[in-house]
Amino acid sequence: MMEAAAIDLGTLLDRYADLLVTVGANVQPGQQVMIGAGSQGFYAPVESADFVAILVEKAYAAGASDVHVTWFDPTVARLRMQHATMEQLTTFPSWTLDSFMHLVDQDAAFLSLHAPNPHLYRDIDPERVTSAARAEGEATRPFSHALHGTMSRNWTVGAVATNAWARLLFPDLTPCEAIERTWEVIGRATRADVEDPIAAWRDHLAQLNRRENALNRDRLRRLHYRAPGTDLTVDLLPGSHWMSCANVRSKSGVPFVPNIPSDEVFTTPLRTGVNGTVRSTLPLNYRGALIENIALRFDEGKVVEATADRGADTLAGVLETDPNARYLGEIALVPADAALAQMRTIFYNTLFDENASCHLALGNGFAMAVEGGAAMSRDDLVARGVNQSATHVDFMIGTDELDIDGETESGETVPVFRRGVWAKDRGDLES
Amino acid sequence: MMEAAAIDLGTLLDRYADLLVTVGANVQPGQQVMIGAGSQGFYAPVESADFVAILVEKAYAAGASDVHVTWFDPTVARLRMQHATMEQLTTFPSWTLDSFMHLVDQDAAFLSLHAPNPHLYRDIDPERVTSAARAEGEATRPFSHALHGTMSRNWTVGAVATNAWARLLFPDLTPCEAIERTWEVIGRATRADVEDPIAAWRDHLAQLNRRENALNRDRLRRLHYRAPGTDLTVDLLPGSHWMSCANVRSKSGVPFVPNIPSDEVFTTPLRTGVNGTVRSTLPLNYRGALIENIALRFDEGKVVEATADRGADTLAGVLETDPNARYLGEIALVPADAALAQMRTIFYNTLFDENASCHLALGNGFAMAVEGGAAMSRDDLVARGVNQSATHVDFMIGTDELDIDGETESGETVPVFRRGVWAKDRGDLES
Repeated sequence: MMEAAAIDLGTLLDRYADLLVTVGANVQPGQQVMIGAGSQGFYAPVESADFVAILVEKAYAAGASDVHVTWFDPTVARLRMQHATMEQLTTFPSWTLDSFMHLVDQDAAFLSLHAPNPHLYRDIDPERVTSAARAEGEATRPFSHALHGTMSRNWTVGAVATNAWARLLFPDLTPCEAIERTWEVIGRATRADVEDPIAAWRDHLAQLNRRENALNRDRLRRLHYRAPGTDLTVDLLPGSHWMSCANVRSKSGVPFVPNIPSDEVFTTPLRTGVNGTVRSTLPLNYRGALIENIALRFDEGKVVEATADRGADTLAGVLETDPNARYLGEIALVPADAALAQMRTIFYNTLFDENASCHLALGNGFAMAVEGGAAMSRDDLVARGVNQSATHVDFMIGTDELDIDGETESGETVPVFRRGVWAKDRGDLES
Repeated sequence: MMEAAAIDLGTLLDRYADLLVTVGANVQPGQQVMIGAGSQGFYAPVESADFVAILVEKAYAAGASDVHVTWFDPTVARLRMQHATMEQLTTFPSWTLDSFMHLVDQDAAFLSLHAPNPHLYRDIDPERVTSAARAEGEATRPFSHALHGTMSRNWTVGAVATNAWARLLFPDLTPCEAIERTWEVIGRATRADVEDPIAAWRDHLAQLNRRENALNRDRLRRLHYRAPGTDLTVDLLPGSHWMSCANVRSKSGVPFVPNIPSDEVFTTPLRTGVNGTVRSTLPLNYRGALIENIALRFDEGKVVEATADRGADTLAGVLETDPNARYLGEIALVPADAALAQMRTIFYNTLFDENASCHLALGNGFAMAVEGGAAMSRDDLVARGVNQSATHVDFMIGTDELDIDGETESGETVPVFRRGVWAKDRGDLES
């Protein structure tokens, strides 16, 4: 038996770029494309210009009529955060938003790039950092609504190996080696390292879609999580539905995959229906600070006890963001045999971490989880049971000892997870 | 005697950035700054991100309230030129112009960067390249008018060492060595390599200003150029004045130096007043094609004979751009002992080449050369004797054998240049 030789970096980058353009954003002939859209953390890093050029080439090959790039340099961003006047720091450049909205109007495709850089603003007055982030968030809300909120245009976000991220993942390697290893991680996580990533994604999305559909058919009213340190019941929203990245279409009918990778099936639980205890199984990286071994006790949806072996203060800060930060906004199911889960590490990158483990999120829930939710006010959503908060913090609870049972509306028990993976007695769901 | 040791690259870049920010653009406290403004050839190359970061730091140190960067990647630009639809190629992104005009409205400072890349669009249908350039030129005209046309804001353009330019200058060196040598050329050309570049520029600008004033005081009506192959008389515009970068102020009164380096004193001659022969002394790089040993014969302002040892077809093409391409738009005086002239090479970069040698330019003349010219129509300008054309092509005629005499309105002869340098009998002009 011969093992397939590891592919070289050039081939990997080529396949990965293809994947982002054709499966992720699914660029259509005649569409304009913006690479690096949303907010600063999703612009195209100037240090990744070589990879961006491959993406641009693939976009034209897919028939793009024009490709624009919004570039980002972390050093320039840090200098601005240090030295710009407060007035300017809280003024998001109008022309940047205009470029995004102009392209939304023209039904363009969007390809955002992400690489974490949690220490970028270290030692800068947090008040400045928060004010700038708030201004950016408010200014870009119309764009966020068009893409992330309502999925009206085909878009995706993919990871890119930058020096800052590579240093976090591989602190002991030389910068060149660390970058190359980070690309390998991206390749493994996204299936870009297999012979035919497009076919692999077709199979993967079909499987994800079957899981999503089965959960929705089950019409569960409650989940029961059991693992060492965890004994938690989570009531689901009446009429809620499970979602994944497997079956998303833009307003004009283009199927796309908003996140590459994407292994999760997720929904928002009933705000007041969470009871019991849960323990985190991987460290949580919150804006550069690590929180380890989180233990939470919930009573009628609210966190009433919270401890951590490390970063307890940071955890307390998260919970005090606003009154609703103590309630769950998301529950997500990711099997422990998924590619990322098997690497058993944290990636300091939500895009990867949330696809590496079953997780919960404190804070904001998804309006889309309930019928008609997109048109509801925040107050109405909360009244309906969909938590609303200024924060949304994922923490990982997956382990190969995790069992999850579902309870149907008729009181029947359905095994959902067994020993960390999808329960095997559901033969109809295997590919 | 000890020679000063060559300074290291880091020191050079630091001093050069300081020079561009404080002497060139002369960024004022509270001003916003745009780095990379105008058109694509003047944006900030992503490959120069390290140097751009130094500029950004210097701009904040000068008191900038905010620093924006317009980035550029040549590979992305080439892919667009190859693959974008013709409709998109001729649509300049509205948000880019908006960013410039918004900052013009806010009285920002502008710092453009330039590095030649004459072969970038090689083998691409010239019709596409020309159409894109025309669309860009037309779209950015309001910005060009605000900066280059009327000097209403403080701005500068400086060179930056890129791989493409370094390869042109040092084709036999490794990319790293070539880049380093190119920075050294920039350092020498701009006086950034001396101990106190700011003081050196103060002296240089004072000297340039004295030359400009003296020529204007002389009220010359004609110049007579003599050198091997050259015997040319050039009538000056009645009431015209000589200009330099030494004494320029923005609308709000900020002195700035629009070009770094800048060694020339220049004006536009009388359109119909050029007679005799002239020979070029350095090759002319026209959009990537070299033209060598140009010999022109003028009769009443018009080129009536044109030959070249190499690139004669290209020269013929220049002369056929439009009917006025056969007339001069500029005459410029640069002494052969200027820093750039002493390097005796072509730099493939107009910013450098035009400060390395006395030169003439075929084509468009400067409205500013005559009183009230900025408000005149193109037809009125031509009637007034200021040539107007879609092209403006500089060619070098400086040599250390060049003598230039001036003839005053009263018929007196004044020596202007002797053996390639400013005539030494004008003791009042020496610093």
